[in-house]
Amino acid sequence: MRLDTDPYLARYAARVRGMSASEIRALFAVASRPEVVSFAGGMPATSALDMEAVEQVAAQVIRDHGATALQYGGGQGRAELREQLATVMHHEGIPGHADDLVVTVGGQQALELVARCFIDPGDVVLAEGPTYVGGIGALVANQAEVRHVPMDADGMQIDALEEALAVLEREGRQAKYVYTIPNHQNPAGVSMSVERRHRLAALAETHDLMVLEDNPYGLLDFEGRTWPSLRSMIPERVIYVGTMSKTFAPGVRTGWVAAPRPVRDKLVLLREAADLCPSNLTQMIVETWLTTQPWREQIKRFTNVYRERSEVMLAALDRAMPAEVAWTAPQGAFYVWLTVPPGIDTSDLLAKAIASRVAYVPGRGFYGDGTGGDQMRLCFSYPPTERIDEGVDRLGELLHTELELVRAVFGDTTPPLRARSSQRGGSVGG
Amino acid sequence: MRLDTDPYLARYAARVRGMSASEIRALFAVASRPEVVSFAGGMPATSALDMEAVEQVAAQVIRDHGATALQYGGGQGRAELREQLATVMHHEGIPGHADDLVVTVGGQQALELVARCFIDPGDVVLAEGPTYVGGIGALVANQAEVRHVPMDADGMQIDALEEALAVLEREGRQAKYVYTIPNHQNPAGVSMSVERRHRLAALAETHDLMVLEDNPYGLLDFEGRTWPSLRSMIPERVIYVGTMSKTFAPGVRTGWVAAPRPVRDKLVLLREAADLCPSNLTQMIVETWLTTQPWREQIKRFTNVYRERSEVMLAALDRAMPAEVAWTAPQGAFYVWLTVPPGIDTSDLLAKAIASRVAYVPGRGFYGDGTGGDQMRLCFSYPPTERIDEGVDRLGELLHTELELVRAVFGDTTPPLRARSSQRGGSVGG
Repeated sequence: MRLDTDPYLARYAARVRGMSASEIRALFAVASRPEVVSFAGGMPATSALDMEAVEQVAAQVIRDHGATALQYGGGQGRAELREQLATVMHHEGIPGHADDLVVTVGGQQALELVARCFIDPGDVVLAEGPTYVGGIGALVANQAEVRHVPMDADGMQIDALEEALAVLEREGRQAKYVYTIPNHQNPAGVSMSVERRHRLAALAETHDLMVLEDNPYGLLDFEGRTWPSLRSMIPERVIYVGTMSKTFAPGVRTGWVAAPRPVRDKLVLLREAADLCPSNLTQMIVETWLTTQPWREQIKRFTNVYRERSEVMLAALDRAMPAEVAWTAPQGAFYVWLTVPPGIDTSDLLAKAIASRVAYVPGRGFYGDGTGGDQMRLCFSYPPTERIDEGVDRLGELLHTELELVRAVFGDTTPPLRARSSQRGGSVGG
Repeated sequence: MRLDTDPYLARYAARVRGMSASEIRALFAVASRPEVVSFAGGMPATSALDMEAVEQVAAQVIRDHGATALQYGGGQGRAELREQLATVMHHEGIPGHADDLVVTVGGQQALELVARCFIDPGDVVLAEGPTYVGGIGALVANQAEVRHVPMDADGMQIDALEEALAVLEREGRQAKYVYTIPNHQNPAGVSMSVERRHRLAALAETHDLMVLEDNPYGLLDFEGRTWPSLRSMIPERVIYVGTMSKTFAPGVRTGWVAAPRPVRDKLVLLREAADLCPSNLTQMIVETWLTTQPWREQIKRFTNVYRERSEVMLAALDRAMPAEVAWTAPQGAFYVWLTVPPGIDTSDLLAKAIASRVAYVPGRGFYGDGTGGDQMRLCFSYPPTERIDEGVDRLGELLHTELELVRAVFGDTTPPLRARSSQRGGSVGG
């Protein structure tokens, strides 16, 4: 995977204020070299996919149903696929019925259609801070005001959410919805505790709130555990977004929304105006994958790869990082969220990192308000373990050097350096 | 193809004021029966596609490049595909460079992104009347005001366009762009004359206008002729939209925009917020189709099928229609545009038509202003010739019966019935 086709890094770079198109191109020209280890893109390990099976599935779809697979389809997506996607939800213990689902171009289109459906310019959406770049992108494109709710190792801090709701009330406003990624959050790599899910559900009832529950990673728990969904607690208040990008493959661009009927109908109309219909071909490939292949086994295979890579990354961080650096300890999915001491700016550091042959996404990309300059996201899902070791060593060396510079300028104690977090349940906040 | 998954008819039905969801469902329940001949959906004859070749191409892509095909890609689309799409443009004599192209989810996403890029609520867009349902949908979704410019057998009437521009000037406003489908227009089935293209280009210069040139059908001329593109005349003023849906297959959902650089960059950002990136898998299938298969021959094969079907439809109309009905004579692509005498409303007639086992799209779907009640679109691209004969006979019989009713109520001369148009260059206007 070349970095110049890495949508996460590209999107981040486009958001960096003051970085010109030619500077970004120059950065990518270096970053695309094979010797650079990329922890940037949130890319699944497609190499762990049973490619022979996928080839057979695609050939079978075209051989047996080519005239349908290559034709237009309906805007809601194929009923046969929606049945299967409901089965995927049930596998995670989430209620879902084919009729309530709208098939989308990955989870991203789901997030954007929901934003388009609900947001008038200036409307407030509450979201975890940090949160998914593309989620912010969908909100910003629809001129929402994103207000972040801080997180810790147990996910979104519900006390802080209550405070944000109180502030809105004092302003005479209401949040259009709360956007959350409760499971193995991107980018923080933490999950919302069960107790907080119940508190969030209760707050939604008392404050008449909609919740956008974005769940790309729920099935990628390293121990195979599942968490209770918000959809199961307050079904009429939740718009649920799923995707096959992480449990099968992003290349089929297949996600979905599950929503109460009136919302579902509006989403179908919006999607028809947006791109008419999803691809029958990729829909039927996913459908056939789910009906004829051992997809639960494939998810286990993915999860084993990610668990091993996360262990290698956490061990490498322990070994290579300065004592003042803190990070979270994921129990599923793709991400470690890392906080550097004051005096280091992760946006400024990116060019040096790439020159040192390692890439990450700077923290500011995951906030809508310009904060996060002392944070970065490391994604361990894509590089093989020996590359992870190399990359973390390079990043550690760079941060050691930077810290020496900071100390040379500010002295040993100013600005104050933070104590190192424990690995399990490390710090998320900036 | 079941009618209830026919996006054109579904979208039309959703637009009909006063038609409830349950009435639409009831209509579709009947319409989906195999005995109904559908002239509704603008669906290519995928049965004429070399399915074995497509199967081989898909298998080859996954076998040789599976890890890339199933991964995320960049928001602009693959450079390799853009190179090939530029070749498709050159085959039609249209200038295009891979760098200027953005790959989209069919032509529809291109139309919607362009609307999103340019339209502020209340902005005026000038469009042919009638015009593509999905083009209107993209404009309406972005709160544009659509003003129609009437057409005749030579396409958009440029005198009327000048008049519309003069009206706007008197209002102190300017059109954001002119939306046109110059070749084998959907739904009118006519092409803009070369002289009018030059006049439109000149008007764009003098009035500082942008033109959105939508060209799904340019390569489907029955005689293999090509028309000079507006893009070749005023490249800096034209945003060009192409698609592989009609020259290859809609199921790969692959279209593109060619735009001046600043617009291109904004379109890439909008598309990333909308759905992150197009499917690498379908992109690579199209790419491999274009590099390894005789795609020009496949287009000829499609065109031969459509020419034959158009001839059968025109002969059937001649035979079956009341003398007062007029229609256009397509020289390429998919559509005949039919005008019925006053007293008959094609929206009201649809339920009866479906009960008579024939379906079409009522004219109102192709206007943003509620006109077109005396018109309908007949699409001949999908049904085999014997079904076309059957369907036109049923529709002719129905219109004969309706006309008798109109005469019984209004008498022979009130409201005045129009003289029948000649087939070649028949009437477009309502």
